[in-house]
Amino acid sequence: MDITTAEKIYRDYRRRLRAYSHAMGVMVYDKVTAAPRGAEARVSESLDVLNEASYKLEMSKELSEAVDYLYDHRDMLDAKTRREIEVYRRDADYVRSIPEDEYIAYMSLTNEASDVWRRAKEENDFASFSPYLQKIFDTNRKFALYYKPDCDPYDTLLDFYERGLTAERCDAFFGRLKEELIPLIARVTSAEPIDDGFMHAHFPTETQRKLSDYLMGVMAIDRGRCAIGETEHPFTENFGKNDVRITTHYYEDDLTNSMYSVVHEGGHALYELGSGDEYEGTVIAGGASMAMHETISRFYENIIGRSETFCRLIFPRVRELFPNVFAGVTAEMFYRACNVSAPSLIRTAADELTYPLHIIIRYEIERDMIAGKYKADDIPEVWRRKYKEYLGVDVPDDTRGVLQDSHWSGGSVGYFPTYSLGSAYGAQIYAVVRRELDVDAAIASGSTKAINDWLGEHIFRHGAMYDPDTLFRMCTGEEFSPEYYISYLKEKYGKLYGLKD
Amino acid sequence: MDITTAEKIYRDYRRRLRAYSHAMGVMVYDKVTAAPRGAEARVSESLDVLNEASYKLEMSKELSEAVDYLYDHRDMLDAKTRREIEVYRRDADYVRSIPEDEYIAYMSLTNEASDVWRRAKEENDFASFSPYLQKIFDTNRKFALYYKPDCDPYDTLLDFYERGLTAERCDAFFGRLKEELIPLIARVTSAEPIDDGFMHAHFPTETQRKLSDYLMGVMAIDRGRCAIGETEHPFTENFGKNDVRITTHYYEDDLTNSMYSVVHEGGHALYELGSGDEYEGTVIAGGASMAMHETISRFYENIIGRSETFCRLIFPRVRELFPNVFAGVTAEMFYRACNVSAPSLIRTAADELTYPLHIIIRYEIERDMIAGKYKADDIPEVWRRKYKEYLGVDVPDDTRGVLQDSHWSGGSVGYFPTYSLGSAYGAQIYAVVRRELDVDAAIASGSTKAINDWLGEHIFRHGAMYDPDTLFRMCTGEEFSPEYYISYLKEKYGKLYGLKD
Repeated sequence: MDITTAEKIYRDYRRRLRAYSHAMGVMVYDKVTAAPRGAEARVSESLDVLNEASYKLEMSKELSEAVDYLYDHRDMLDAKTRREIEVYRRDADYVRSIPEDEYIAYMSLTNEASDVWRRAKEENDFASFSPYLQKIFDTNRKFALYYKPDCDPYDTLLDFYERGLTAERCDAFFGRLKEELIPLIARVTSAEPIDDGFMHAHFPTETQRKLSDYLMGVMAIDRGRCAIGETEHPFTENFGKNDVRITTHYYEDDLTNSMYSVVHEGGHALYELGSGDEYEGTVIAGGASMAMHETISRFYENIIGRSETFCRLIFPRVRELFPNVFAGVTAEMFYRACNVSAPSLIRTAADELTYPLHIIIRYEIERDMIAGKYKADDIPEVWRRKYKEYLGVDVPDDTRGVLQDSHWSGGSVGYFPTYSLGSAYGAQIYAVVRRELDVDAAIASGSTKAINDWLGEHIFRHGAMYDPDTLFRMCTGEEFSPEYYISYLKEKYGKLYGLKD
Repeated sequence: MDITTAEKIYRDYRRRLRAYSHAMGVMVYDKVTAAPRGAEARVSESLDVLNEASYKLEMSKELSEAVDYLYDHRDMLDAKTRREIEVYRRDADYVRSIPEDEYIAYMSLTNEASDVWRRAKEENDFASFSPYLQKIFDTNRKFALYYKPDCDPYDTLLDFYERGLTAERCDAFFGRLKEELIPLIARVTSAEPIDDGFMHAHFPTETQRKLSDYLMGVMAIDRGRCAIGETEHPFTENFGKNDVRITTHYYEDDLTNSMYSVVHEGGHALYELGSGDEYEGTVIAGGASMAMHETISRFYENIIGRSETFCRLIFPRVRELFPNVFAGVTAEMFYRACNVSAPSLIRTAADELTYPLHIIIRYEIERDMIAGKYKADDIPEVWRRKYKEYLGVDVPDDTRGVLQDSHWSGGSVGYFPTYSLGSAYGAQIYAVVRRELDVDAAIASGSTKAINDWLGEHIFRHGAMYDPDTLFRMCTGEEFSPEYYISYLKEKYGKLYGLKD
């Protein structure tokens, strides 16, 4: 073996592995955006076949030897190739630590569980989903222990989505948030409510589609490389930087939902679209981590998208599309309505202020499930108790409770914390952006392009070339602190709701 | 080897091969209905990888031996398994006759050519596509000779799409059509024109989408197993009988185009949706042949969809969706406007009467290209000459000429004749349906369900269990004759245009 040969082997396998993950990604994207319901069974069958073939490629001795050789000689590689091998090997090590039959069975389990979950949610039937959920948690715990036998399994899972994240760090971060936000939310809840009744008039889907196109334009998203689809649970997917997909869901009695879904997913899209050309097709294309991705999406959704300047910018078009609804509404009223805060049941529809509590609840449940403190069957009860305790709301059914999110059914355990971490990262990054750029003037000029460019230069173009904490320090010049986020929320909602200090 | 082992091997390979073709089918479907333009390059790369992997599976010694064993012992198999092996082996023999590198290169060529063609059409740039077209014709000729060295290569290609079809049979069929239709078209063209100006008013896409949903309802298409997408060149695709996709393209200045596109593709869909459950997942699921498929789609589009009863049935909904356009229009006027006949440039927009001439032109060009009578570079000129001669129209550019259809770019040479053969089959089948069913009463009852059921019983449920000519005889009790079709056209257009005998 020599470096040239090893690299050739690595690149050839990567080319093939990329094709499999591309195909599987498109099948899943198509299933949830375009396919008829009848597609499910065969999609599962085909994903099983492709997953197995892909797994066999990934586990092939030839590839493992080449990767190990390159890793052992990493000091002789250029920075980019070295990073590729380090990142690739980290994931491959995880997969290699799991017995083949168990890994393949788990792929199949999560494919099936996604369909079971979707039906369970529709029919408010947690019991049908519960055995799958239990198996998913059990398998995640087991796999985490295969991979790092000496680590707390939940720490291993957290680290999987955000390198370096631990339950201890989460506890500290979320503890600080609870300390500040629970009383703040209570004050906001007892303040004079903001009127957002007009955001719940009738908004025909076909007109909302036009608003989505407009918003993607305002965000300067290149439509030649980014399409929009419709699905039950919006997400962003990408097949390289030239093929990014965002999705939304239109509710005809709620304008805010899809509007901010588009801005949120549009943020994810900008990150992918801005990844450096030199990384395209490699494992370091795309985002630095899940939390960095959520940083960007939540930055666009909340910090930019719910800012007064942004709301004023888009209001004329909103009024033009829905003239009857907005006849007596001012830009100021629209801005305030986009920022109504009230404890609620659904995470994805939650406002910026109460959102972290939704995450904290999920985090605590995940952590305790992995620790074996209770069983899947217990979750609905725990869920109801925590929603009452933290947000003061009664959960009427599991569809609007534990069944609302797709994450666990797809096998993502340890992902939820990245949402709130992302919000907090974003607030700290915002402090830097504002020092270097007149953000309001930039937005008022008609698009977010100047902001995209700043983030592109400091974050997007680097892909996964750096670990997220390194990239964060490169961008902000500091360590992470939740205080920026807490100040941002206190200031914004204090002003909106006229709270006295 | 024994039968049980051989069948087990065959079914296991089929399961895997089906997953690959499913994945590739979805990727292509997604590319042309949902993906941003930027997706093209990576889709091509991934299709190359998957095609190669699929090809290797298909060519594996283990599978070939199992299939050969089953074929040699076919008298011991049940009728369904025997048919599966016969059908599978026929296709596999074709692929096996081609050297590996040439086959893989051809898959790659047609993937690339499809993208080149799409751009060439957009930019009216035949020169950029011509080398691909030449290569595609040359490769088709070469492959046909690999497969059947002693056959005329164009006959081999025709037989590939419609078992038993030859250039001699086509010449006889098309000769008869030319004889009758060219003078009939001339008489129609000089008759009093039908007013269809209102079909070219403004029809917003979002309202046309509602019409599509309505039409799929009238056709009693199960939406839980059939979705509709939007694309440049409408087609139908299926991934089993529980996942069928039809597509359309909306033109805001032309209602007829998408309306009949939906009915046409809906016909294809009904055929797939009605395939026997017992064949699901096997090579005999789906249609008996391309011509039988076109029989059904054109039967719904023209014989049913353009009938007076059908037009009267849908007219109230059409008027409801576009009240301003149809304010002064009667159902009779609408029916007549749906059946306007006039020589034109675009095959897919051609009326029922002039359509066969579009096919004859393509047939003659294909046949002569495979015979080596001229080069791809000559086609635009030949195209213009034939359009002038047969239809009396001047072709202004290649976009509306030789570049209009996707077939050749995708490698389909020998397919076009199946369209007209399908129309003629349909007219003969219609004569039987009318003897057994009150077609007008069935349609007037609000949906085509009774017709679907009749065709389901006699055609759909059999899948590819029988060769198309056998199925045709089973269904009609006769051999095929073009005279039903000719009489049908003469009667219908004679009446519409008030021609005297």
